[in-house]
Amino acid sequence: MALTDDQSADIAAARATEARTLRPTVPALEAMLFEAIPVLDHGFVRVVDYMGDDGAVVQAARVSYGRGTRAANEDRGLIRYLMRHRHSTPFEMCEIKYHVKLPIFVARQWIRHRTANVNEYSARYSILDREFYLPAPAQLAAQSSVNRQGRGDVLQGEEAARVLDLLREDATRNYDHYIEMLNEDEQGRAVDPDRQGLARELARMNLTLNAYTQWYWKTDLHNLLHFLSLRADAHAQYEIRVYAEAMLKTVDAWVPECAAAFRDYRLGAATLSAQMLAIVRRLLAGEDVQQPGSGLSKREWRELMETLGRPA
Amino acid sequence: MALTDDQSADIAAARATEARTLRPTVPALEAMLFEAIPVLDHGFVRVVDYMGDDGAVVQAARVSYGRGTRAANEDRGLIRYLMRHRHSTPFEMCEIKYHVKLPIFVARQWIRHRTANVNEYSARYSILDREFYLPAPAQLAAQSSVNRQGRGDVLQGEEAARVLDLLREDATRNYDHYIEMLNEDEQGRAVDPDRQGLARELARMNLTLNAYTQWYWKTDLHNLLHFLSLRADAHAQYEIRVYAEAMLKTVDAWVPECAAAFRDYRLGAATLSAQMLAIVRRLLAGEDVQQPGSGLSKREWRELMETLGRPA
Amino acid sequence: MALTDDQSADIAAARATEARTLRPTVPALEAMLFEAIPVLDHGFVRVVDYMGDDGAVVQAARVSYGRGTRAANEDRGLIRYLMRHRHSTPFEMCEIKYHVKLPIFVARQWIRHRTANVNEYSARYSILDREFYLPAPAQLAAQSSVNRQGRGDVLQGEEAARVLDLLREDATRNYDHYIEMLNEDEQGRAVDPDRQGLARELARMNLTLNAYTQWYWKTDLHNLLHFLSLRADAHAQYEIRVYAEAMLKTVDAWVPECAAAFRDYRLGAATLSAQMLAIVRRLLAGEDVQQPGSGLSKREWRELMETLGRPA
Amino acid sequence: MALTDDQSADIAAARATEARTLRPTVPALEAMLFEAIPVLDHGFVRVVDYMGDDGAVVQAARVSYGRGTRAANEDRGLIRYLMRHRHSTPFEMCEIKYHVKLPIFVARQWIRHRTANVNEYSARYSILDREFYLPAPAQLAAQSSVNRQGRGDVLQGEEAARVLDLLREDATRNYDHYIEMLNEDEQGRAVDPDRQGLARELARMNLTLNAYTQWYWKTDLHNLLHFLSLRADAHAQYEIRVYAEAMLKTVDAWVPECAAAFRDYRLGAATLSAQMLAIVRRLLAGEDVQQPGSGLSKREWRELMETLGRPA
Repeated sequence: MALTDDQSADIAAARATEARTLRPTVPALEAMLFEAIPVLDHGFVRVVDYMGDDGAVVQAARVSYGRGTRAANEDRGLIRYLMRHRHSTPFEMCEIKYHVKLPIFVARQWIRHRTANVNEYSARYSILDREFYLPAPAQLAAQSSVNRQGRGDVLQGEEAARVLDLLREDATRNYDHYIEMLNEDEQGRAVDPDRQGLARELARMNLTLNAYTQWYWKTDLHNLLHFLSLRADAHAQYEIRVYAEAMLKTVDAWVPECAAAFRDYRLGAATLSAQMLAIVRRLLAGEDVQQPGSGLSKREWRELMETLGRPA
Repeated sequence: MALTDDQSADIAAARATEARTLRPTVPALEAMLFEAIPVLDHGFVRVVDYMGDDGAVVQAARVSYGRGTRAANEDRGLIRYLMRHRHSTPFEMCEIKYHVKLPIFVARQWIRHRTANVNEYSARYSILDREFYLPAPAQLAAQSSVNRQGRGDVLQGEEAARVLDLLREDATRNYDHYIEMLNEDEQGRAVDPDRQGLARELARMNLTLNAYTQWYWKTDLHNLLHFLSLRADAHAQYEIRVYAEAMLKTVDAWVPECAAAFRDYRLGAATLSAQMLAIVRRLLAGEDVQQPGSGLSKREWRELMETLGRPA
Repeated sequence: MALTDDQSADIAAARATEARTLRPTVPALEAMLFEAIPVLDHGFVRVVDYMGDDGAVVQAARVSYGRGTRAANEDRGLIRYLMRHRHSTPFEMCEIKYHVKLPIFVARQWIRHRTANVNEYSARYSILDREFYLPAPAQLAAQSSVNRQGRGDVLQGEEAARVLDLLREDATRNYDHYIEMLNEDEQGRAVDPDRQGLARELARMNLTLNAYTQWYWKTDLHNLLHFLSLRADAHAQYEIRVYAEAMLKTVDAWVPECAAAFRDYRLGAATLSAQMLAIVRRLLAGEDVQQPGSGLSKREWRELMETLGRPA
Repeated sequence: MALTDDQSADIAAARATEARTLRPTVPALEAMLFEAIPVLDHGFVRVVDYMGDDGAVVQAARVSYGRGTRAANEDRGLIRYLMRHRHSTPFEMCEIKYHVKLPIFVARQWIRHRTANVNEYSARYSILDREFYLPAPAQLAAQSSVNRQGRGDVLQGEEAARVLDLLREDATRNYDHYIEMLNEDEQGRAVDPDRQGLARELARMNLTLNAYTQWYWKTDLHNLLHFLSLRADAHAQYEIRVYAEAMLKTVDAWVPECAAAFRDYRLGAATLSAQMLAIVRRLLAGEDVQQPGSGLSKREWRELMETLGRPA
């Protein structure tokens, strides 16, 4: 990860400025506020503001005054009930804001989550950093032969070396040419007085999709959990999943009861279709059910057996 | 306004519980946090949480680290530039949560603003309070004869008295019957052991639209300002406008630079159509332009003359 | 249901006006276009426009040209795959618009679904019809003793008669007073020249929550299915569920493959938490698992046994 | 623009398949349905479905039965009134779906408009075409010296030639390496049996931001007009503005009354702040007002004089 000295100094300064507030405050999240959690080779995610806590979810569900006098275990039960029955609106009462540095191809997946507020670094206006994502060797995976959207084995030997070389050289060369076309150095100072320099909004098109960008991204807890349920999932692309996993840790610190309920009722849960439920009932009744004649496709059958922990 | 003793005690307790935070904090808003601002005869609005400040808008526009080192007047200029050119996303970086008590017919207008998070008191689950809105005499207006959607003169004498009597008697009687059908008192205790009591989700249908409900309502600053631009406007119905005006004061305390820019570029501004602009140019050139032949309808001409402070 | 003669004539005229189009067209939905499906005592729902079909979902998932050449059974498999794995965006490519007449207390639940476009009849501007919902005897239910949000037994005898009388009389009287305060008849003609009449935006507050309103409501298929999964569910209040059930029939006609997948993977499906899945695995392994020690609360245990079709 | 023979055949086939419908139908839009409008060097935009017409806006505003019997000029007046007073919800009753081929850096701007439905070609799943945007010589602009976000003079001579060479060579080389890393040809057939091929979801990161992608993009008329007001504006980047201009022509064909009102009250209109209005009033009163002492910054003064068609 690449925090400049200036950035580190800014974070230290922000962490030194304490104020008094009457708002709900979460010490475990305050402890990590502003700090950058490294992700991938140059990326990070850091919490820069938040609003609400586990109690805000409970309060909204009760729409009552003050912070309530119920015992903590009743609050836990209510949060679990809300999560189980997908009563989503109380979770919208908490809000969090992240600062994220991430490769552009990851940003393109991420931005598809529309219920969020975003301010991205503008390459129309500013010059992007000389930073691009290069996969670690363990992530240099081949195309999966069974899943058209997934990864297979890790590339080895010459093929791996060649791929890494290409990725590095192409990103570097394209960045060099980007700077050359701008006729500016990375601090925005003109270089060659005899050239005008291509407009930034045009020059950026020469960059590769593994160049890093950054943004502020703010959302409510309900939509954040929806994001995490899709992106912290095993089917998500590795390069976005690592961001989701880092964010999930901040959720653990922020709203521990909501996070625990989320793991039980969403991340670790499975939805069984009407047909699957019928098969489970037959299995529980001792019947010998096989895929042929089950009404499930082979693919669904395999998914069900995996869910039930049985050999397919 | 009707705060119960319990509610007042809860507010006092919440205001006594101070914490330390690293988050941006606004003392002027902290000073009014949790306190209920009275609106109408039994309603109120109160800020129960917030996130961000003027600086958060500037920070998002700059997408830079830390809280910046620019002079305050540069920040002001940037905020005004953003507001003037409708660069709305930086204003989405601030969030505020209100607790509101309001008549149901006002709630029905309010809820049309969709980009917000809401948890409303549920009359399927709980019993509504015996409170309903009765207009003050000065608000007992006749239908406007020129605006099919507005108010005209204030009703006087017998007609006014009759209207107030009807509103009061009908609301009271319907509430009494609501309680009777429930076979519960207002605290939810069964009354007549020989009756079952109608389900709450059904009994509520007997209530009048001036009964009070309450909710938590949370939104970002951009959408709040959009709400206020429509609801703090002279064309808004009085009964929602007074809520908007109370909220506008909380915005003044919270983000004073954004609030000032909002008053200049939105509340106090006017949009002139292509045709209107052409007329203004002709007027400035000394030409004598009259409505006939101006290309504007009579209604538009009247609107333009009003905007320009000229006799129609 | 109350269609006026004018309305029936308008529907007949609309149904007589056929055009040629290159757009995807669904004959089964065309057959019911504009026709009002009766719901409750005076309500209805009718499809007034639509866009897309099953093929539009497939097309979006394939992002390919034209309408494709795959066999119909491959399309069905793809739709089922999308529904099972909650790939929701292709379902957003279909859009439908309804005209609905419904009691205000139902409208208040309905409007909480924010991702939709709505234009409601305005009682600031126009006079509402003299129509209010009165439950049929079979729907006059007592409060549930086990579910604070539900219904129990049907009221009988005197209590039922008294409740119906109160609902009818209060709604009627309040409507009469509404009209009196307006000093207008139901067609908007002034009645007493010596009175001014209360503004419509104020007079409406005297109406009861079972008065009927109407609106155009437009949404995409994904959000419609989400609405139906919550409102066609057994836990939904009867008075909104009957609307959802009527709309589900229009979905069957419109996008039969999507509707079938929705019934299998959403309406008829169940989500099992991590703990529930562990218990199912133990049961399948022949273990005797009881609620005490299962890790589930009594309530969750009961829900699980019900899902599995076993005695609790 | 690059339509393959297959695509052209698909379009021809779709245009040959006519159906009968009772829905509102717009012949002028039907005439261009499915046809690709060329944009930039390889891009296009084409309407693939629509719902509603000018009459649907009027109908929603009137929330009345049928298609209405008012004269066309009353409908026009109502549409203009709605547009002038920003009554936006009736415009949400029309929906349109486009198929767009566009450079990735344009897609990144476009996707910031969140109130839309999108399905994009997936480079996790499929191989992108060998197509990238190269600006025409007239678009090869230098960075603006007065606007940090804009363009200045067009590059000339050697500098222009060098920039074009770099853009072409880098995009081509990176695409070649993308294909090499995949170990697939452009039709997805394996090339070298001794290599595994890098996963598609990784290889795509080597592509440049001027590579073309494509998507289905569906939105309602209100949000489309908001998009066009920002993107058909002179301040928008040329490469997205040409898409907006092509789409504006489809709006002209689809909803001509709405489009005309949009041009008058939005595209051709100007918003004057409270301070600007005060100055216009003083000017109209014959006063000699200059920037110093006007209360406007130099920048705002220049904007106002430009709006009023006066020398700054």
